[in-house]
Amino acid sequence: MAELLYEGKAKQVYLTDKEDEYIIHYKDDATAGNGVKHEQFAGKGVLNNTMSCIIFDMLEEAGIKTHMIEKINERDIRVKKVEIFPLEIIVRNITTGSFCKRLGVSEGVTLDEPIFEMSYKNDEYGDPLINDDHAMALKLVTREELTYIKETTLKINELLKDFFLSTNLKLVDFKIEFGKTKDGDILLADEISPDSCRLWDVDTNQKYDKDVFRQDIGNLIETYKAVLARMEKNNKEINNGL
Amino acid sequence: MAELLYEGKAKQVYLTDKEDEYIIHYKDDATAGNGVKHEQFAGKGVLNNTMSCIIFDMLEEAGIKTHMIEKINERDIRVKKVEIFPLEIIVRNITTGSFCKRLGVSEGVTLDEPIFEMSYKNDEYGDPLINDDHAMALKLVTREELTYIKETTLKINELLKDFFLSTNLKLVDFKIEFGKTKDGDILLADEISPDSCRLWDVDTNQKYDKDVFRQDIGNLIETYKAVLARMEKNNKEINNGL
Repeated sequence: MAELLYEGKAKQVYLTDKEDEYIIHYKDDATAGNGVKHEQFAGKGVLNNTMSCIIFDMLEEAGIKTHMIEKINERDIRVKKVEIFPLEIIVRNITTGSFCKRLGVSEGVTLDEPIFEMSYKNDEYGDPLINDDHAMALKLVTREELTYIKETTLKINELLKDFFLSTNLKLVDFKIEFGKTKDGDILLADEISPDSCRLWDVDTNQKYDKDVFRQDIGNLIETYKAVLARMEKNNKEINNGL
Repeated sequence: MAELLYEGKAKQVYLTDKEDEYIIHYKDDATAGNGVKHEQFAGKGVLNNTMSCIIFDMLEEAGIKTHMIEKINERDIRVKKVEIFPLEIIVRNITTGSFCKRLGVSEGVTLDEPIFEMSYKNDEYGDPLINDDHAMALKLVTREELTYIKETTLKINELLKDFFLSTNLKLVDFKIEFGKTKDGDILLADEISPDSCRLWDVDTNQKYDKDVFRQDIGNLIETYKAVLARMEKNNKEINNGL
């Protein structure tokens, strides 16, 4: 059995016999409000892993460097070993969530340009919002690394927006994480799924993401299955040349 | 009697018979914690106006464009009419205050480079921290205006650090505000005083600023008088060629 290196809220990271590789295992846990709300949903890990792999493959094909090596099985992926920057990178295309609560802004407004935002990953302090200078002062990232992360994040936003729009979903906002290999390569890491993206139906604005759990407004598994079904339908249509 | 345009926590702004000029009147009020703590200190307005005028004169001489036209009397100044950007511009040279509380950082650490920080001036939402993209999304300032404000702020920081160091005080952090004239000129506005700067004695780290009121650790008037005395002593020495 591989050695558990780290256990997060929704995933585990295992060491492997290769020094530069980890295995990430997707659990069935859903948490919200910095872990205050916590439930298990049978099959959630399989769904998130499946969706995240489809998305990481798409991003790799578009030239984004990610930690992804291969999908091992429905819950496990092999990834390049990185040291994760203690930063939650957030992009907002439409106003909602903490942005509206903190600043007294209307919900659901499409922004002229995307907002790039960072939180310092620190559970004890509630992942506080920081700006570039704070990240420097805390020595979380260098100025050059941050420039690369910003540029890459905005490219990822464009790719994800198009990807989800082709499934009739609007990408409202999302959270990603980056890590650095021992050679200094900066790679997109963690996952991209309805746990980490807000997705609203283009026509109805119905929520297709973890907000159904956060706000108790729907069945998480049925919602995530519906997102995957849209992604697979779209993929099939593309393969059929439709 | 001139018409009162706006009353803030520590100052009043009056219209004048000239369309492009305001008069600012310094009150004796001190507030802290977004107005939760509130007291009056006889003579505080005179002290702040006196100190702020000395500082604005120094900055003007060094090439910083400010709203200052002239000191009218011990409590009143004539200024250029500007529309204030709803931004609190904060610079930190040494860690303390909300920076440490929010991020779990040690107090009193001298930073390698100054931190530039912005809060959205909004009492209802507690003047929340924002980043550049938030300021754009809220349409508080344009990208070009913000670039100018940042550059000017960092120059002001260098000038203020030197100025206070010559009085044996360390400039820990400070808050400033900028405004825009109807011609689009961006001017340093508001005030610079121990209400808006944290100042620590170089040798003892004793606090010479509004923290004596916030934290009930000293007499506000005696403290502000001591800062003014240091500024005047220093000024006299410079004039005497000492």
